Amino acid sequence: MASPTESAGRTEARALDLADPLRAFRDRFLVADGKLVYLDGNSLGRLPLDTVARLAQVAELEWGERLIRSWGERWMELPERLGDRIGSALLGAEPGQVAVADSTTVCLYKLASAALAARPGRSEIVTDRDNFPTDRYVLESLASEHRLRIRWLDADSRSGPSPEDVAAVTSESTALVCLSHVSYKSAFILDVPGITRVAHRAGALALWDLCHSVGAVAISLDADGVDLAVGCTYKYLNGGPGAPAFLYVRSEHQGQLRQPIWGWLGRREPFEMAQGYEPGEGIAAMRSGTPPILSLVGVEAGAELVIEAGIEAIRAKGIALTEFVIELADRLLAPLGVEVGSPRDSARRGAHVALVHPDARALSGRLVEAGVIVDFRAPDVIRIGLSPLTTSFTEAWRGIARLRQQLIDR
Amino acid sequence: MASPTESAGRTEARALDLADPLRAFRDRFLVADGKLVYLDGNSLGRLPLDTVARLAQVAELEWGERLIRSWGERWMELPERLGDRIGSALLGAEPGQVAVADSTTVCLYKLASAALAARPGRSEIVTDRDNFPTDRYVLESLASEHRLRIRWLDADSRSGPSPEDVAAVTSESTALVCLSHVSYKSAFILDVPGITRVAHRAGALALWDLCHSVGAVAISLDADGVDLAVGCTYKYLNGGPGAPAFLYVRSEHQGQLRQPIWGWLGRREPFEMAQGYEPGEGIAAMRSGTPPILSLVGVEAGAELVIEAGIEAIRAKGIALTEFVIELADRLLAPLGVEVGSPRDSARRGAHVALVHPDARALSGRLVEAGVIVDFRAPDVIRIGLSPLTTSFTEAWRGIARLRQQLIDR
Repeated sequence: MASPTESAGRTEARALDLADPLRAFRDRFLVADGKLVYLDGNSLGRLPLDTVARLAQVAELEWGERLIRSWGERWMELPERLGDRIGSALLGAEPGQVAVADSTTVCLYKLASAALAARPGRSEIVTDRDNFPTDRYVLESLASEHRLRIRWLDADSRSGPSPEDVAAVTSESTALVCLSHVSYKSAFILDVPGITRVAHRAGALALWDLCHSVGAVAISLDADGVDLAVGCTYKYLNGGPGAPAFLYVRSEHQGQLRQPIWGWLGRREPFEMAQGYEPGEGIAAMRSGTPPILSLVGVEAGAELVIEAGIEAIRAKGIALTEFVIELADRLLAPLGVEVGSPRDSARRGAHVALVHPDARALSGRLVEAGVIVDFRAPDVIRIGLSPLTTSFTEAWRGIARLRQQLIDR
Repeated sequence: MASPTESAGRTEARALDLADPLRAFRDRFLVADGKLVYLDGNSLGRLPLDTVARLAQVAELEWGERLIRSWGERWMELPERLGDRIGSALLGAEPGQVAVADSTTVCLYKLASAALAARPGRSEIVTDRDNFPTDRYVLESLASEHRLRIRWLDADSRSGPSPEDVAAVTSESTALVCLSHVSYKSAFILDVPGITRVAHRAGALALWDLCHSVGAVAISLDADGVDLAVGCTYKYLNGGPGAPAFLYVRSEHQGQLRQPIWGWLGRREPFEMAQGYEPGEGIAAMRSGTPPILSLVGVEAGAELVIEAGIEAIRAKGIALTEFVIELADRLLAPLGVEVGSPRDSARRGAHVALVHPDARALSGRLVEAGVIVDFRAPDVIRIGLSPLTTSFTEAWRGIARLRQQLIDR
């Protein structure tokens, strides 16, 4: 039986759900098992009901009927059309700067490599030990290839590197500053315009990873002076497993920055199949090979729901959800040894909450077995993902109550 | 009205269709418009009927219901499981050497780059001016990056470079020989074991592009001593638009060759998200980012049909179809100025036929408008793709008859 403290949480969750202006969006996603508590929508977003129909339609009409003609009719421009749609609605980016095609890792590789080539003679890359692994590994590969040094920031992961922290390791040797907008572990929101200014003052370029912010937090790439960015579509954009990432290249850098993977679709007039690579115009020069259309269709369908809901409403619910979970954690979990590992200032916190406990690994495993899907992040974080379009307050409450039970039963 | 010569072709086509042991396979693909003549299955294969159901199933069950759990249950190993399936049935590759994940271009970049790093001090790459553009451009980007020289083969595109041609430009300076198994323009089949031996004699590595051969022609990578290979899944494997490519790394090179795009899924124990990149075991080290699962599902469904039909039967029909088209071309088109640009020896010819005419560009455009889908390849090739599982002899006959009519009506 739930304790009085727990019951209070449930009542509060119900009230919050009733007052939630986004609550109808949950019905536009498949919720196959109403008992499952899914607190991992920031790792893989739920399936939009529209997506299944869109996939069938694209498969049957565009692929099956129109066949190769669909390349000219629809698919060839899809990476940029979809990029513009996401860019203007979610990234604060004017058209012509965003494209969706390769994995996050490949996008990071292309943009980081292009940035390094644009800063010859500079020998350092600045990033964060707590940055997402693929970002760190890509930078390590480029550092190894070009004999550069990585200046690792060792900021407290709960407060993230500040512009001052970045300034302390940035100099005329810095070619590139590469950081994540929202920390995948703690949800800390970095100061994008502030850190970008620090990079620029040193003459370096700034590459932002938006994987854990796009679709959850407002982004303003153009206004913030960002040079380059990449972001994931299978988390808050609900694009489907392994859906391709987007990349952003600020207009003024296009034509100057050269990405390393020269492929036929990045060439000027690709179908001339001419001798000698010459990059295409604008963002198209960032293309390499043929993009995976069926996976792009998933991105299109998923992103459309986020755009329809609007990032302001999503951000407001993200704050409400994380505040609610932090409140519950303080009340129900802190007495059992769980610490909140995310910022308490909601202006500095994305849409997930890190709960820290020495037994996080075992607890996460048992939660998943018990139908509460969370992520474990080494060494000691249970990550509670709260995807504003699909996570209800009641679902969040049930997850925390279940975790409390696990802690009591240990 | 069809002339007597033309009618003979139609009668012959009908007889060939009736005797075709693979004819039932056509019914397992969507043929939405029976009047459409689709001679471009080597550019984008038709939609298998199974694919639509498979996509819905994966979306609804694996993504929608199992959500993130599907990564552990099914998706994480999909690139290698699918690679093994394609490898053993279609590539002559023992398990553990093939994976399906990125675009052909990205796969080429990773493998060519790994090969160059494995031959330090060598300054040359050998390829063919007639090689597919993306192959040439990728090699150009790497040559530019590493200040290497490309030794361009200028073989007659109808006969392709022979081992002797390759030997003439290969030396102790050669790091890599990179060629296509089947020429995308002329369909000429290169001598894979012969050229690979030439490369090895010089101490170079051989990287083969199988885009225009896999699923049409028998391939024996292990037996032929091939070091590295990539290949496309959206042509003869009917995997869908932009479906991810596969890459092959010979067992004995694994652990030695290091690809440049270090990403989280290529790391040993990726979910530890630890500091410092260390490549995973075996072919997994060739991974970079998260693969596009919905597009991989298309590959799985499409390749399964090819595997079921068997490459011997497919190859036999490919030969029969191309012989039939060449015969028709000689009879019906040669008098109107069309030349056959593909090898006449079927042992040296893949599953498409190049028809050469000075007005090829305009003729191809008019054919497409008239519902005969062919590809134009600059400067003067009308490419007739004959995908053995889906192209009927009657369809091929109708295409040639329509082209003849266009030539007469000009």
